[in-house]
Parts: sequence; structure tokens; C-alpha cells
Amino acid sequence: MLKLKSKQGRRTKRPGVRLRVNRNLFAQALPSIKLSPAWFACIPAALFIFLGWEFSAWAADEPLTVETLQGYLNTTFVFIAAVLVIFMNAGFGMLEAGFCRQKNAVNILAKNLIVFALATIAFWALGFSFMFGKEGGNGFIGLGGYFLSSESPDTYETFGLPIPVFFLFQVAFAGTAATIVSGAVAERIKFVDFLIFSLLLVGISYPITGHWVWGGGMLGSIGFLGEGVAFKDFAGSTVVHMVGGWAALMGAAFLGPRIGKYNPDGTPNAIPGHNMGFAMLGCLILWIGWFGFNPGSQLAADDAVPYIAVTTNLAAAAGGITATVTAWLVIGKPDLSMIINGILAGLVAITAGCAGVSYWGAVIIGAIAGIIVVFSVLFFDKIKIDDPVGATSVHLVNGAWGTLAVGLFDKDLGLLYGHGATQLIAQIVGILTIGGFTVVLTSIFWMILKATLGIRVHEEEELKGLDISEHGMEAYSGFLKE
Amino acid sequence: MLKLKSKQGRRTKRPGVRLRVNRNLFAQALPSIKLSPAWFACIPAALFIFLGWEFSAWAADEPLTVETLQGYLNTTFVFIAAVLVIFMNAGFGMLEAGFCRQKNAVNILAKNLIVFALATIAFWALGFSFMFGKEGGNGFIGLGGYFLSSESPDTYETFGLPIPVFFLFQVAFAGTAATIVSGAVAERIKFVDFLIFSLLLVGISYPITGHWVWGGGMLGSIGFLGEGVAFKDFAGSTVVHMVGGWAALMGAAFLGPRIGKYNPDGTPNAIPGHNMGFAMLGCLILWIGWFGFNPGSQLAADDAVPYIAVTTNLAAAAGGITATVTAWLVIGKPDLSMIINGILAGLVAITAGCAGVSYWGAVIIGAIAGIIVVFSVLFFDKIKIDDPVGATSVHLVNGAWGTLAVGLFDKDLGLLYGHGATQLIAQIVGILTIGGFTVVLTSIFWMILKATLGIRVHEEEELKGLDISEHGMEAYSGFLKE
Amino acid sequence: MLKLKSKQGRRTKRPGVRLRVNRNLFAQALPSIKLSPAWFACIPAALFIFLGWEFSAWAADEPLTVETLQGYLNTTFVFIAAVLVIFMNAGFGMLEAGFCRQKNAVNILAKNLIVFALATIAFWALGFSFMFGKEGGNGFIGLGGYFLSSESPDTYETFGLPIPVFFLFQVAFAGTAATIVSGAVAERIKFVDFLIFSLLLVGISYPITGHWVWGGGMLGSIGFLGEGVAFKDFAGSTVVHMVGGWAALMGAAFLGPRIGKYNPDGTPNAIPGHNMGFAMLGCLILWIGWFGFNPGSQLAADDAVPYIAVTTNLAAAAGGITATVTAWLVIGKPDLSMIINGILAGLVAITAGCAGVSYWGAVIIGAIAGIIVVFSVLFFDKIKIDDPVGATSVHLVNGAWGTLAVGLFDKDLGLLYGHGATQLIAQIVGILTIGGFTVVLTSIFWMILKATLGIRVHEEEELKGLDISEHGMEAYSGFLKE
Repeated sequence: MLKLKSKQGRRTKRPGVRLRVNRNLFAQALPSIKLSPAWFACIPAALFIFLGWEFSAWAADEPLTVETLQGYLNTTFVFIAAVLVIFMNAGFGMLEAGFCRQKNAVNILAKNLIVFALATIAFWALGFSFMFGKEGGNGFIGLGGYFLSSESPDTYETFGLPIPVFFLFQVAFAGTAATIVSGAVAERIKFVDFLIFSLLLVGISYPITGHWVWGGGMLGSIGFLGEGVAFKDFAGSTVVHMVGGWAALMGAAFLGPRIGKYNPDGTPNAIPGHNMGFAMLGCLILWIGWFGFNPGSQLAADDAVPYIAVTTNLAAAAGGITATVTAWLVIGKPDLSMIINGILAGLVAITAGCAGVSYWGAVIIGAIAGIIVVFSVLFFDKIKIDDPVGATSVHLVNGAWGTLAVGLFDKDLGLLYGHGATQLIAQIVGILTIGGFTVVLTSIFWMILKATLGIRVHEEEELKGLDISEHGMEAYSGFLKE
Repeated sequence: MLKLKSKQGRRTKRPGVRLRVNRNLFAQALPSIKLSPAWFACIPAALFIFLGWEFSAWAADEPLTVETLQGYLNTTFVFIAAVLVIFMNAGFGMLEAGFCRQKNAVNILAKNLIVFALATIAFWALGFSFMFGKEGGNGFIGLGGYFLSSESPDTYETFGLPIPVFFLFQVAFAGTAATIVSGAVAERIKFVDFLIFSLLLVGISYPITGHWVWGGGMLGSIGFLGEGVAFKDFAGSTVVHMVGGWAALMGAAFLGPRIGKYNPDGTPNAIPGHNMGFAMLGCLILWIGWFGFNPGSQLAADDAVPYIAVTTNLAAAAGGITATVTAWLVIGKPDLSMIINGILAGLVAITAGCAGVSYWGAVIIGAIAGIIVVFSVLFFDKIKIDDPVGATSVHLVNGAWGTLAVGLFDKDLGLLYGHGATQLIAQIVGILTIGGFTVVLTSIFWMILKATLGIRVHEEEELKGLDISEHGMEAYSGFLKE
Repeated sequence: MLKLKSKQGRRTKRPGVRLRVNRNLFAQALPSIKLSPAWFACIPAALFIFLGWEFSAWAADEPLTVETLQGYLNTTFVFIAAVLVIFMNAGFGMLEAGFCRQKNAVNILAKNLIVFALATIAFWALGFSFMFGKEGGNGFIGLGGYFLSSESPDTYETFGLPIPVFFLFQVAFAGTAATIVSGAVAERIKFVDFLIFSLLLVGISYPITGHWVWGGGMLGSIGFLGEGVAFKDFAGSTVVHMVGGWAALMGAAFLGPRIGKYNPDGTPNAIPGHNMGFAMLGCLILWIGWFGFNPGSQLAADDAVPYIAVTTNLAAAAGGITATVTAWLVIGKPDLSMIINGILAGLVAITAGCAGVSYWGAVIIGAIAGIIVVFSVLFFDKIKIDDPVGATSVHLVNGAWGTLAVGLFDKDLGLLYGHGATQLIAQIVGILTIGGFTVVLTSIFWMILKATLGIRVHEEEELKGLDISEHGMEAYSGFLKE
């Protein structure tokens, strides 16, 4: 009676139900018992027993306990966190579109929009099972319950959460990994190749390495480092960002640079983005989305949530500030792209350690990330990896930095807190194994696509812009362009 | 003492209050009673009685029960869902502005902004009472408690929720119905007519048909189909989207097409939108907003919420993918407008059935919606209904499809699950009655406006653009335009 | 056992834990006791005692009580509210960028992005302690616990909330005060000066006046007006908006108007914004953000939350409508900037009284705000204060109006409800003291900056636009501009 399933269209009254004790029932139940004085003294006790019994009877009917309600609160919280993470698709879309040229804007927008649709279907069909499936799963890969076909808590590892909400949160994460790629391969990849690669990444590669860390897989216990030693990545600096970053880097490498990016002497040309308003909006949407990403990874609405939010925010702030200063010193101007990438670098870097580091640790991790990202962007330009939006520097390099930082700054495990180098080594093991696997597998994906469909548009299509050549439309109809 | 009303500016400490039993009081209360051995044995029982009594005394003072807390959780959840739905105004604004020409951008932005202000006032004054008023209400219309004047739970049907939060959620829905119209009538309607029409739609038409389904009205029991048979529309495929879609179609029909849309031989000209970044952002904001729209319609923070979110997300993804493929096959290009409208079509279509269909059902409903929307856009172009943003195809056509789909795919009622055609017929009855009423009433509204104020701007104003002619300003000052 | 701290990466099962009573333990505990008949009668009582004992034993282990869970719900709610308020940075960024010229867009975007990073660090280091520090704090300023160094509830006034979530909510507010300034000083201030001013405002000035009202400071009890009389500002019409507005006005005054804003005869030239889509999106993001700002200020997830949300929404709607009508009558056109500023004016004005006024009160407060803002914009243009986005009219003037309105419309304290003028006078006292202090202190900040670094860019830089001259980049590369 208390737990009503609202049927479709037949909504039911729900809140404010109160415990009502039926005292008449009590009176009827004891009419003929002869009462001694002791009995009289104990009547109130019996009343309590009766209340207890009625409560027990209710229990069979699933009464609303405080623990059940806690489950609802946790579900609500993780649901909201998932919505914030899904909102990050808008953030990546705006950011990447803003950083590209207007002649390719429709293309990058279309990629960033359809990629979450593809990720949803791929992760529903296979990815979720490969990552969290417990039926016949092993240390390398999860298995079973494809297409969310099971409602049994034995089929998937959901950490006590209802399957749908855990799936929603995880599919949002998986979509993030895929959308990181779109920026690095922008302005020259064929649309169809990106679609297929996204399906492969979200359906196969990402969930396998994810399984190793979060699904009960092999990095949950690194035997040769001692008992109980595990690779630690609270919210996905490595599992999501570094994996997306490696997939992006491999894509950028296989594609080669955009026409005109590098001069014959090897020096890079700046190809400025076409809409810095979109880019800045994208950055702030991502910042907001990270409040789902990191605190949501607690998977419960408890006191750890705001602590994680504060470390996350401090690292973002520190990264934004140090990137601004570094760019000012190195490039000579407070470059807006660098402010944006500094904030994102701080966010990526704190993702692994957000729950276990101190406030000062968070500030230092973020501050270093903001410095790293500036030099990393310059470095990749030097080695002629053309990444139009800096996705590799933000997600790969700072994903790795943030993962290492756990081994240094974690209050319970870090080297700087006197806990030795074991955790730091475990972090390196995780970075190398996950990075190595992702590099190999995504390279195979890119190579197969290159050999079959070809991954790069024709030269004249690239010069004309992908919007007209691939989509037959302009992003900014009616405006005069250079 | 436990339930403190925070007075304005005098915030009160609140969480973490613990039950404290005053054992001294107990000792004082029983000093002179002569105690037999049996009494001694029962002291603990008496202690419990005392605890129970104190609890009862508290109860009079409204102690925090788990049910009260559940009420707070439900309120919090529905409040957040309402905020997400209100955010959809930004989604519609960006989407519609992006799909129109820059010379009319200020106008469409102004309409999409002011419409929620108007909807708020109209629904507060009349609409909420017409939809959910119980004082003297009947099967056709609700009545009473205008201007939220009553705090009594007998005045409005709120499904056990506090009046303000239910109102907030419902006003957000009402605003959605109005904002659907703005896209279809864009680029040629007089500003003042749109304002008046919005007031009439939200204040009168929408709440009457809404009352039939959600307010205890006549579609809650369709007698001639048998006892207990009701029209089912969980979150508003018909109540919100089809109603908005019909109002939009009538507006587009009464206005006639934009100058230059159709050639003398009847073939349509494409009039491309001016900012696809806005359109894509709008689509993602709407996607996010739908996580308030559908799961929030559960009106309680329980386990059904994430299930609804997952079916919603699957349908959106499926709609986006099939629309992309269909457009690619039919038009020859992966058209970004079609990806966007495919996602929205999937979302509209799953809205009626999101709580009652299986995951596979959701995917199929969404996939069909994505195909329908492409052909529907081509169809309306053929019959010379000029709908600049495709609102009719998304909201009317797929609103109807999603409503029908309940009769096919609902796990407990659908034809495809062996439950016969009764529910399907009920759905058709609902679609026809609500559609018919809306067509008639909104046509009357449009005709009165046409006869009195005139609904269409002058030809030279339309050619110059509504931004200059109606608002005296440009959307993109400083840019050179064609 | 019940309250599990999820360690980083080692997520723990959490929901659905049920109370299990170990009846075997009970049997073992009482084997050798000789039982009298009275005892038999009391066995059930003893059972209850045992249950009670087990419960007590658990209590030492922090069992999940309904009050603990209420704390989690409150924390979750305030966390989400904080995220909504942080999202307002995107709103201000889009609004202000849209209202400026494209040649200064990068600059205004960069300022609005980095300002929240700076606010985070400044408020973490000093501001939070100056505002809420209890160690050695006094009526003028809070002190102690800098850099969130303390976890003790005695260090900060957090109204029963965990420190991190209260900090997150408050840092979001502090950031809002700073971001208000950026609009008024746009298009001519040096980037570095804005950064330093923001640090000073958020680190020193804002928290001091904030302490007077919310931190237990001197406006919490205005002795000469009688016992218990306090300045009332529920969510910050004065504490946040008027303070930010004064700082903005002082900045605009010290900077002087933009080149070309005023003709030699003193008449103003309109300098239209460059992207009304951004401005409208910014307005709607702010509207959404205000659902965190005002309801979140309740600091608890209770029934007052949706009431506050409804008054907030009604005032926004009323302000938007009256500003539209007023602009139509006065300027002759339904100006989109005025619709936007009318909505924001309504929101600012209801912020102080949202929890204590009636629905009708909210509508009237918002409606008056929408009228005020139109005339205020015209007024500041007349006295040659050049505020490109109207920040002063929205935040200062309507912040003051909303604060006064509490003394008129508050149901328990207001003049119009027959409670005399005491509260109105208290409101005036607060407005004057906080306004006076802010004017003096921020003037000192601006003067020091002017005397040392200089606050205004060179004339040729201003003419060229700050994007090229300060940041070396364009906001809209590839577009042709006038």
C-alpha cells in the first residue's frame, strides 16, 4: 500500500502517508484474556508488541523504511548526476564547434550530436555488458545481459544501485569518451568513419578497459605489488579521459594534419576557431557537467559528494588561472583558448583523485595541469600532430597526470603523505596497460577503416569545407565570410 | 521543534537533529509509585511506553517521519524536474532561432523568451484551475482556486504533492505547449498576435484538454470501451506536444507560407536556417530537458524514474539514428536539421509510453519516429504548409504516433503484448477528441485575431525582416550579411 | 556498517540495507534466567528492550536515522542549487558578450570565464572566513579557518550544513557578485585590472558586508529599532546584487564612457549588442540559475522550496511583461534587450523577499521592477554613466527596490500588511550601510588600480577592439564585419 507503482497515466497519491495503528483490532484480539495485575502493568508493553507485529506484517508488504528511502535518494542523485554528464555533450559540441572553422561547423555539430545517440545504442547492446556483466565475465572482460535484457542484480555489477540508473550514468560516461575523439579528428575526417569508430570505441574498446578498473576486472587487484593494491581512478581520468584521448591521438595521427596547418619548413600556422562564444559556453557547460561526473561517481548521496565537488571546483579554478598566467608569459597574451583548456585540464586531472586528496592537493593538481596543457599544446604542434581543439593535451596528457597524482597526493595512499611508492607504481601500471591496450585496439580500428572506406575526405572537399561537401548545407546562412 | 520554518533572513539549523530521550523526566514522573517485583520486571517496558508517549507528544508537533521525508524528497525531485522543463524554453529558443533567417532572429528570440512569462501568468490566473481545479469542476473543465488563491488540498488535484511544486511542474509543461507554436508561425506573424494567442492557448485551450486526461476529466474513463478503460498519456505526447502541434499547424495554415517559400509551380524552396550551432545546442538542451519532462511525470522520486529516463534516452537515440539514415537515403546527405528533428521526434513519441514500454519497445517507437519525421517534413512541404522549423512534424505527427504506440507497445495493455485492441481504440478516441477540440478552438482564436488585429506583417516588413520592422534592432550588429 | 565511506575507486554497496534483528542472540543471552509468570508476560517487553539495546549499540556505530538521511537530502539539494548558481556564470557570460560589440567579445568572454576561477580561489583563501568565520569574528567581520583549513563546526557558521556544501553554495554566490561587474566595465577596461578587482571584491569587500547580514554580523540585530529587528535579505537582493551593482557603477564611473557613446551635446548613441541569441540564451540560463539562487537559500529541502520557486518565477514573468509593455510605450518597440533586462530585474527584485511575500506580492514586486529597469536604463544614459549591459539598472537599482519591498510586502513584517514601518526602516538602514561601505571600499580599489596600473586601455586599443589588442585573437574568425 505504501509502495505504489504509478501506472502509466494513473498517477497515485504518494507523499504524506502516515502510520495509522488500528486500535480496534487490538481491542478485538484480546477480549477474553484474564488479566492479572502484572498483566495490567504490561499492557502498554503488549501494545508495543502489537505495534511491532503490525510493523512486521507491513514489512512483508515492503513498508517505507529509511533504508528504502535512502535508496530512492541515491537513485535520484545519480539520475541528476547522469543528466549533468549527458549535458556535457552540449559542452563538447559547443567547444569543438567554436574552435573549428565555420566551414566545418555543421560537420562537427552533427558529429557531436549523433555520437551520443550511437553511444547509447552501442553501450546498451554490448558495452554495458562488457564493462559490468557478471555472468561468465572474467578479469579481462564482462559478459552477459546484453541489451539490458536482465533485471537480476546478479547480472551486472551496479554497486547496489538499480540497474537503469547505473546504466544511465555509465552510458553518459561512455558517450564522453567518444565525444572527446571528435575534436581531434575534426575538419578532415569522413562523417561515416567517425560514426563507425564511435560504435567500436563505445561498444568494445572503452568498456573492456573500463571493466579492468570499475567492473571488477584485473586492475582491481595488482598482485605483484602486494595484497589489496589496486589501480585507483575514482571518476575516470584514465578510464574515460585518457582512453578518449588516446583514441583521439591515434585518429589525428592516422589522418595527418589539415591542409595548410604546417608550412613546408615544419612551422605550424594558427588556424583560429570561428566562434569563441560557443567555445566559452562549452567550457562552462563542461564545468557544470563535471559536477555530475565527479560527485556522481560517489554513486550515493552522502557527505562525500560536496567534498568531491569542492576539490573539483578548486582544481578547475587553479588550472584556469595557471594556464592564463602561463600563456601570458609564454605566448605573451591571455589567450582565451588557453584559459578554456586550462580549466578543462584542471577538471580532467582532478577526476581520478577528487575524493581522496586534500583541498591543497586539488589546487596543486589543477595548477600543474594548467601549466602542462599550455606546453602540451605547443609540443603536439611541434611534432605535427594536428589536434584542432587540443583534446589530446586536455584529456590524454592531463588524464595521465591526474592518474599519477593519486599516487602522490592521495591522503591515504600517496607518496607525499608518507605511504611509499606502491600506489604510484600501481597508477603507472594502470596507465601503461590501459593506454597500451587502447592504442593497439583503436589503431586497428582506424587502420581497418582507412583500408576499407578511407578515413579522410578529398582535398577539394576539405578546402571547400565539410559542411557543403558532406552535409550540403552551411552553418551560417546569410552571413558574408572571408 | 524539529520542523522549523526558516524565516526570511533568519536561517535555522536543521540537519542532524537527533532524538534525545530525557531520562530525568522519566525518573521524576514515577517517584511515588509502589513497585511490585512484577513492576520491576516491567520497568523497561514502561520505559518504552514513555518513549512511545514522548514520540506521540512529538507527533502532535510534527516529528520528522520517514514519510514526511519522502514527501520532501518527492518535492525536491519534482522541483528539479520542473527546472529542467523550464530550461526547455532555452532549447526551443535556440532551436527555432537557429532554423530561421538572421533577419528574423530577434523576433523569434523575443517570442520564445516572453512566451514563458505570459504562460506563467496565464496559467497562474486561469489555466491551472481549468486543468486541476476540483471545486465545481466536471469532466470537461476544472474550476476554482484561480490565481493559486487556495492552500487547501481539496481545491486542486495535485496527486499528493504540495501545491507550489505541482504548479511549477505544470506551468513548465504549459509553457512548452505554447513555445511549440512559435516555430511554425515564425518569420511572418505579428508579435502582438503571438502574445495574445499564447495567453489564450495556455489560459484556456491547453488546460481544458489537459483536464480531460490528467485532471480527472472525461478521458480518464471511456465508458463505451468498458470499465476502467482510460486514455493513456504518461507525460504528454498528446496533452502537450500534439496540442501544441495542432495549434502550430492552424497558425501556419491561417498565416500562409513565407514569401518566396513556394515557386509558382508549387515546388518548395529551401530557406536555410542561419545558425546551426544554436539549433544543435537547442536540440541538446531539449534532450536534457526531457529528463525532467518524462521522469518528472512520475511525480515521485522512486525506482520508476531511471527506468523512464532510459526508455526516453533510447528512443531519442534511435530517432536520431533512423532520421540520419533516412535523410541520407532520401535526400542524399546526413542533414543536420534532420538529425536534430529525428532526436526530437523520438523524444516526443516516447513521451506517452515511456513508463510502460520495454527497452526494445522504446527503441522501436523512437526508430519509427525518426523515419516518420523525415517524410512528414517532405509531406508538409508538398501540401504547402510552411513550417520553418518542422514543429508540426515533430510535435503533432509524432505526438500522435507516440500516443498510438501506447496501444501497441505497452507491456500491460498493448496489442502486441496480446491485450487486444481496446487500448489502441482508447488512444484513437483521445487523439481525435483532443485533436478535434484543439483544432476548432485554436482556429477560432486565429480567426478572431485575423479579423481584428490581422495576424501577418506587411509584405515589405517581411522582406526587410521582422527584427528591424517589429523590434527596431538587429540580432548580429556589426556583421556583414548577404 | 551502515554508513560506509566509499573509498576512492573502491565503491561500496549502499542502498537497500535493511534492519535485521538477530533473534538467536536474544535466545543465547537469556538461557539461565529463572522465569516467573510475570516474566512470561513481560517477555515481549524484554524483546523490545533487546531491540532497543541493539538499536543503541548500533547508534554508537552511526545507524542511518531519518535525521541523518534528512541531512543527506538537504546536502544533495543545496549541492544541486549550487550547481545551478554556478551555471549562472554561463548566463552572465552569454548575456554580456551578446550585449557588447563583436570586437570585444573575446575579452568579455575571457573575463566572465576567469572570474569564477578567481572568485573560487579568493573566497576559499579569505572570503569564506571573512563572511562566516566564527573564531574571533565580530559584528563587522568574520575571522579564522582560512583556506577551509578547519573541519570543525565551530569554525564557520554553516547553518547545520556540512562545510563543503555550504562553501560551494556561497562561493557560487560570491562569483555572481563579481561577474555583475564585468558587464558594466566592458569594452574599455584593462584585463589585468578586472582580475585584480575581482580578487579584492570577492576576497574582502563582498564577504564583509555579507557577514553583516548572513554571517551573524551587525545587521542581524538593529538595536535602535527595537529588539529582534533585523535587516532581511533572504537570498541576496542587497548582499549579492546591490553590492555587485555598486561595484559595477563605481567601475563605470571611474572608467568613463566608451569612445563614441556620447555626442558632444551630451545625447547618447545606441551601441547595439552583436549577438542577441547569446543575450537571450544568457537570460534564460540566468532564469534557470535563479531556481538555485533563491530556493537554494532555504538551505534545506523542505516545503518552502517550491513556494520560493513559484514567487521567483512569478516575479520574473511579471518583470518581463511590464518591461516589454513599458518599452513598447516609451521607446515605441518591444525591445528585446528590455524584455531580457525586465526579466532579470524581476528576478533581482524578488530575491530578498521570495520566501516571505504572497504570490500577488511577488507579481507586484516583479511588475514594478520591470517598469523601473526601463526608466533606470534611460536615466543612467542621461547622466552619462556608460553601462553597456544595463548591469547597474538591473542589479543595483532593483536590488535596492527588492530589499525595500520586503518592508512593504512581507506577510509577517511588511507595512502593507499592517506591521508598521519598522521593517521598512531596517531595510533602508541595511541598504545605506551596505551601499555606503561598498561604494567607499570599491572606490578605493578602483582608485588604487587607476593610480598604479591604469584601468583603461589606450584609445587606439579601444577603437581596434580589446580582442585583438588584449588577447591577440578574434571571436568570429572567418566572418566579414563592418
